Amino acid sequence: MLNRMKHALIDSLKRKDKLQFETLAKELYPIDVAEALTKCSEKELKTFVSFSTPEFHAKVLEQASDRLQLRLIRILDYSEIVHLFTHMSRDDVADALGNLPINLRKDLLNEMKDSELATLEELLGYSRDSAGGIMTTEYIALSHELSIKEALDKIREIGPKTEVIETIFILNQKNELIGTADLRDILTTDDTKSLSQITNENLVTVFPETDQEKVSLLVSRYDLKAIAVVSQSNRLLGIITVDDIIDVIVEEQTEDILRLGGVSGQETTDGTIFHSIRRRIPWLLINLGTAFLAAFTVTMFESVIAQVVALASSMSIVTGMGGNAGNQTLSVVIRSIALGELELSKNWHRVFREITIGLIQGAIVGFLAGVILYFKVGNPMIGVIIFLAMIGNMIVASTSGFLIPLVLKRFNFDPALGSSIFLTATTDILGFFFFLGLATLFLPWLI
Amino acid sequence: MLNRMKHALIDSLKRKDKLQFETLAKELYPIDVAEALTKCSEKELKTFVSFSTPEFHAKVLEQASDRLQLRLIRILDYSEIVHLFTHMSRDDVADALGNLPINLRKDLLNEMKDSELATLEELLGYSRDSAGGIMTTEYIALSHELSIKEALDKIREIGPKTEVIETIFILNQKNELIGTADLRDILTTDDTKSLSQITNENLVTVFPETDQEKVSLLVSRYDLKAIAVVSQSNRLLGIITVDDIIDVIVEEQTEDILRLGGVSGQETTDGTIFHSIRRRIPWLLINLGTAFLAAFTVTMFESVIAQVVALASSMSIVTGMGGNAGNQTLSVVIRSIALGELELSKNWHRVFREITIGLIQGAIVGFLAGVILYFKVGNPMIGVIIFLAMIGNMIVASTSGFLIPLVLKRFNFDPALGSSIFLTATTDILGFFFFLGLATLFLPWLI
Repeated sequence: MLNRMKHALIDSLKRKDKLQFETLAKELYPIDVAEALTKCSEKELKTFVSFSTPEFHAKVLEQASDRLQLRLIRILDYSEIVHLFTHMSRDDVADALGNLPINLRKDLLNEMKDSELATLEELLGYSRDSAGGIMTTEYIALSHELSIKEALDKIREIGPKTEVIETIFILNQKNELIGTADLRDILTTDDTKSLSQITNENLVTVFPETDQEKVSLLVSRYDLKAIAVVSQSNRLLGIITVDDIIDVIVEEQTEDILRLGGVSGQETTDGTIFHSIRRRIPWLLINLGTAFLAAFTVTMFESVIAQVVALASSMSIVTGMGGNAGNQTLSVVIRSIALGELELSKNWHRVFREITIGLIQGAIVGFLAGVILYFKVGNPMIGVIIFLAMIGNMIVASTSGFLIPLVLKRFNFDPALGSSIFLTATTDILGFFFFLGLATLFLPWLI
Repeated sequence: MLNRMKHALIDSLKRKDKLQFETLAKELYPIDVAEALTKCSEKELKTFVSFSTPEFHAKVLEQASDRLQLRLIRILDYSEIVHLFTHMSRDDVADALGNLPINLRKDLLNEMKDSELATLEELLGYSRDSAGGIMTTEYIALSHELSIKEALDKIREIGPKTEVIETIFILNQKNELIGTADLRDILTTDDTKSLSQITNENLVTVFPETDQEKVSLLVSRYDLKAIAVVSQSNRLLGIITVDDIIDVIVEEQTEDILRLGGVSGQETTDGTIFHSIRRRIPWLLINLGTAFLAAFTVTMFESVIAQVVALASSMSIVTGMGGNAGNQTLSVVIRSIALGELELSKNWHRVFREITIGLIQGAIVGFLAGVILYFKVGNPMIGVIIFLAMIGNMIVASTSGFLIPLVLKRFNFDPALGSSIFLTATTDILGFFFFLGLATLFLPWLI
C-alpha cells in the first residue's frame, strides 16, 4: 500500500502531473516522500521542487538522507535555500549545513541574516554527538513572574514556532533556568495565579558538551518529554526533544551491535561492495594477526601433536568454548556499560563473581567434553587434560569478557569496539597453551 | 550527589525521621526513590509506606522493579492496594498486577470496581510485548463536531487524568478514529471554528496484537508523540506514548545484544551466580555439540596431519577468520532486520553481493595468510592451500551470515537468537574441511 503510493508519487513527478502529486503528497508522511525521492533523477527532483511549497519542501528536507539533502539543496540558488531554511527548525538547518561541502556552507552562511547566523554558528560549533549538537533553540521559556493568563497568551503566540509545547521552561529575573511548568497545569490553574506557583523545580539538565548517549540515558530514565541544555552559569541554551532522543538511542544501538560484530561505522546491506569491504577488512587484518599468534602457540607444541595426532582435533574445542563463554560475559558487560550500570572503579570486585562462573561452567562443560573424548580416543588421560584445560580457559574467558570492555571504557575507548578481538585472541592463545601444555606434561600417559 | 541523597533517604527511613524523608522525597525523582528502596528492609519499607501519600507511593510503585513492586504491595491490605491503584495509570496497574502471584492478583481484581475491572482485564488480556500490552487507556478523544472552545474546555477537564495532552484524538459520529489534532493548533485557532477544521487525517495506527518492536519502529520513523491502537473496525482502544516506546527500544536492544552473545533473557552482572549460569549453560552445551562436530571433521584427516604436522597450527586460521567475517555480516543483517529494512522474500538476491564480498575478502586475507605461511613453513604449496581454503570459507561465512538470520526470521524465530551458533558451526566445519581436504589433494607436494 505504502510502496504503491510511493511509486505513484515518483510517477507523478515523471509525468509532471501536479494534481496527482499534490493529492499523494497530502496522504504521505514527509519521511515517505523523502524515501521515494531517493529513487528520482535530477530532473524529477527539479519537478518536485517546483511542485512543492517551501513548507513542504522543508519538511521533506528534514527527513532526507544526507545524500538526498545535498541533491535537493544543489538544485536551488542561495536565496531560495535561505528561504527554505526559514521553514526548518534550527537544529535541522544546522544538521543540513553540517552535511554540505565546506564552500557551499560558507556561501550560505554569508547569505543569512545576522540574528539567525549567531544561533546557527553556535549550533554548528558543538560536536555532532554532544548535547549541543542535537539540541534545538526552539522552546518556550517564560519568566516565573508571569500570571497564568499572561503565560497562556505568550504560549499562544510562540507555540507554533517551537518544537515542544507541553513543557514550558521557567526562568528567574537573572534569566537562569529554575524549573519547568506543565502545559496541563497551566491550562487547569486559575488565571490569576503566577507561574512560579506551578513551577516544578526538580530539574534534570545537561551541558552542551555532554555526550548524547548520556543524555539519552537521562531522558529514558526520567521519562522526560524534553531535557534542558544549560551553560555552567545555568542559562538555558537549548532543549533536546524526546523524538531526537529516540534517533540517538537507535543510532547508538546500531553502532554497538556493528562494532561488537567487528564492523566500524555505518553499514547497510544495500551499499556498494567496496564500501562494505572498506568497513570490514581492517578488523579482519587485525584478526589475521591474532590468528597467527594463536597458530604460533600451536607450533610450539608440534612435536607433541606429531606423537598424539588426536590432540589436533580436540584442541579447537577448548579454544572455541572459551570464545563462546567469553562472548557471553562480554555481551552482558557491554550492555550494562551502555545502560550506565557498570564502571571499572565501582565494580571491579565483581570479577570474582565472573571467576566463579568460569570455574563452574568450565567444570560442567569440561567434564562432558572429557567423557566424550575418553570414549572417542580411548585414553582417560586425554579426558582429564581437556577437563583441566577447559576450566582454565573458561576462567580466562569470563574474566577477560568482564575486564576488557571495562578497561577500554576506563581509557575512554568504546568498549564495543575491539573487545571481542582482544577476547578471542586471549582465549585462543591461552586455550591452546593450556591444552597442549598439559598434554606435554602428561605425554607419557598419552602415548 | 544523587547517591548521597539516596543514602540519606534510606537513613531517614531507618531513623523514622519523617521531616527529613519528606524533604528528600521532594528533591528526588520517583525512580531514584525506587532504587533507594530496593536496598531497604521490610521494616523500612513499612516506614516508607506510612510516610508517603498514596500519590507519591503510586509514583514510586510505577518506577519500581518487579521484585520491589511485589514487596511494596505485600505490605498493604487489599483495600489499600486498590486505593493506591486509583492513583496509577491503568497500563502501570496492569503491569503491576501482571507481576503478582496469580492468587493475589485474583483477590485484588475481586476488590475492584466493575468499571475499572473491565479496562484492566482487557489490558491484562494482551501479551506483554504487544501493542495492547503496553498501551494506556488514558488519552483525550473528542468528537470532530466540537468547536475549538468546547474542545479546550474538555481538555481542561480531562487533561490532568491523561498521559498525553499534546495530541488529541478525533472521532467521528460512529466513534471511529479519523485523525489527530495538535494542542498547539487548538490553542491558536479561532474559538468558533470546529475541531474537524484542524484535524490531521494522516494517521499511523496499530492493532493491539502488533508486536511492540514494530510499534517502536513506526513511532521512531514518524517522530510521533503517541500512537493510536485501534480495533479492526477502527475504534480507538488505547494509545502508546513515546516514553513507553523508549523503554521498548532499550529492552529490545538489550535482548538483541545478549542473544547475539549467546545469553537468553535478562541478565545483569549483579544477579546471583546460579541465575547467570542457568542463562548461559544451555548455549554452551549446544556449542559443545557443534565444537565436537568440527573436531570430528578434523579427525577424518588425522592421517594427513600426522604426515604434515604444520597443518595443525594453520587450520584454525581458516576457521577463525571465517567466524570473524561471518559475524561481521551477521551483525549488519541482524541490525537491518531489527530496523525493518531487510526481509528474505524481498532481499534474497542480495546474497550475490555477500558472495562477492566473501570472494574479495577471502582473496585479500588468503593471499596475506598464504605469504606468511610460505615463509613460516617453507613450502609454497601450503600457501596456495590456505589461499584457496580462505576464499572458500569466506564465501561460506558471508553467505551464511546473510542467510541464517533471514531464514530464522522467515520462520518466526528471533534472528538474534542462535544465529551465531549456526554460523560458527558452519564456518568451523567447512573451514576445516576445505583446508584439510585441499591438503589431502595436494599431499604429494607437501611432504
